[in-house]
Amino acid sequence: MTKFNFLLTAVALASSVSVASAWDVLPSEAPAPADNPTTPAKVELGKMLYHDPRLSSTGTVSCSSCHNTMLGGEDNRPNSMGVNGQTGGRSAPTVWNSAFNTVQFWDGRAESLEAQAAGPVTNPIEMGMKSWDEVVARLNSIEGYQKAFADAFGGNAISKDTATKAIAAYERTLITPNSPYDKYTSGEQLAMTDQQVRGMNKVAELGCTGCHSGPAFNGPGLFQLFPVHSNGMYQARYHFNKDLGLAEVSKKAGDEHRFKVPTLRNIALTAPYFHNGAVKTLDEAVKIMAKLQLDKELSKEEIADIVAFLNALTGEFPEQTMPHLPATAGGTFN
Amino acid sequence: MTKFNFLLTAVALASSVSVASAWDVLPSEAPAPADNPTTPAKVELGKMLYHDPRLSSTGTVSCSSCHNTMLGGEDNRPNSMGVNGQTGGRSAPTVWNSAFNTVQFWDGRAESLEAQAAGPVTNPIEMGMKSWDEVVARLNSIEGYQKAFADAFGGNAISKDTATKAIAAYERTLITPNSPYDKYTSGEQLAMTDQQVRGMNKVAELGCTGCHSGPAFNGPGLFQLFPVHSNGMYQARYHFNKDLGLAEVSKKAGDEHRFKVPTLRNIALTAPYFHNGAVKTLDEAVKIMAKLQLDKELSKEEIADIVAFLNALTGEFPEQTMPHLPATAGGTFN
Repeated sequence: MTKFNFLLTAVALASSVSVASAWDVLPSEAPAPADNPTTPAKVELGKMLYHDPRLSSTGTVSCSSCHNTMLGGEDNRPNSMGVNGQTGGRSAPTVWNSAFNTVQFWDGRAESLEAQAAGPVTNPIEMGMKSWDEVVARLNSIEGYQKAFADAFGGNAISKDTATKAIAAYERTLITPNSPYDKYTSGEQLAMTDQQVRGMNKVAELGCTGCHSGPAFNGPGLFQLFPVHSNGMYQARYHFNKDLGLAEVSKKAGDEHRFKVPTLRNIALTAPYFHNGAVKTLDEAVKIMAKLQLDKELSKEEIADIVAFLNALTGEFPEQTMPHLPATAGGTFN
Repeated sequence: MTKFNFLLTAVALASSVSVASAWDVLPSEAPAPADNPTTPAKVELGKMLYHDPRLSSTGTVSCSSCHNTMLGGEDNRPNSMGVNGQTGGRSAPTVWNSAFNTVQFWDGRAESLEAQAAGPVTNPIEMGMKSWDEVVARLNSIEGYQKAFADAFGGNAISKDTATKAIAAYERTLITPNSPYDKYTSGEQLAMTDQQVRGMNKVAELGCTGCHSGPAFNGPGLFQLFPVHSNGMYQARYHFNKDLGLAEVSKKAGDEHRFKVPTLRNIALTAPYFHNGAVKTLDEAVKIMAKLQLDKELSKEEIADIVAFLNALTGEFPEQTMPHLPATAGGTFN
């Protein structure tokens, strides 16, 4: 090893250490709240409910329709499509590793996976059920669910509370470990390419870690302003400012354009990008983030390095069996 | 055993033998055509394609959306919902055991699973792709599919022909063996209840086996007239005559109201019933079939017995792993 190479290696290792302190290896298990410990029966029931289109008014849209567990945890669409072909204004966030979000939804309005799970089911443009009472009545009419809820929670247990707890318990198992980054950080120096290491160090140097830190690269869960710097060209092209973010819910001027920081894990699988899904490629997304959040212009090489690193955040997707959904006795969706 | 009971048992056994000659135990494997032998790589690829919503114009409708492998092989809706919330006039037939249909679609217009698989993808109200060229171009843009097709068919293999062959190969594995009826017919006399045996014998006695014979209880694949006997009340209520069946395709007067005989296997899971999904319950469906096809009025007890028997045709659903669908590189669905 020449002295020059040795120095470079030492610098790279030092960067790697400082980067590792901003980020973390993805845990293999997600912590569960005290009132909803993860149990196999709950996870199995949650998997059924998550994949059951009968939780929608038309019987055609399940949680997995927009947060697809066979894909990167979402639908690769700018906006998802709910019942009767309706679309909203936001792009579905991935369900994979969502257990490591401190808050849920783009505007962070749900403080837990349980609270999040309750939302789309009765949203008129998503799953379109009139009320959770209607959902509970439908689930009660399906004999197999009576048994599955009893197994998970005890007898006569079908309610909004137990259904959302089961879905959240299942979602806590949706973890993608062993990405090249995780292997590299755990000591496998060959798990990432030189370009990916360069990209990693560039991300740290630029200060992306100010928001994208922790095991899921999604910060400590605080809301962040987006965009920080105004830019007429990007605004004209992508209309980022149209969505008020947290202020759409809180109605407070100070919350305008504040969003939950999304995870960077598996981001190579979840195009298109941003809250409104307006940007098709990761290259363009990286360029925009540097400009709008950090007021920095990146070179083509820097963008390529960072995108290479982001590809090193694609984890291993666990093998899952398909749930057998219990039969509808004579039920139909007119 | 009293002499009277002995006689009854002997009669039941004799009936069972005659019934067994009209029907069959469901085979554990489906025969494949000479030009599409079933291979593990083809089945795995077919499972991916079958569950991939990116085979539709909006990226929201997969084969499994309407022929749901987690349910009884269809969607429990009167008519399925395709892209952008559109609906057609027919009820989705089950994919389970469809390998044992001689022809496919309600009007039997496809002579093989391969031919059937090509249809919905480019149907404007189903999956809405403009052409198979567009499908092939999209699949070619997904790196993981290039590999999966090469594994199944050799290099540069993505085409309408190979895609539909892979889907058909997967569908040939969707078999539900070991129903109570199969066990009973294989010698387990306790696998069916007395009521189910009564129902089975009644079905044979009525002559339902004239059309519903063979291992899948769907006849020899000949088209059958429905309804045979006209009935003003049922016509007013369920509009069975609106759909011309095979004549919609062939345009021949002699084909009017001729339909493929649907399987009776897993029929308890596939409400609502008939080609237009107009009838919600199996009780009503049995009553209507007796009246319209055989001009017979059934008593409540006879209907209950037959429905009990039809419930004995629910098989065991094999455990399946979820496919991992390869990532879309920057692809979106505007």
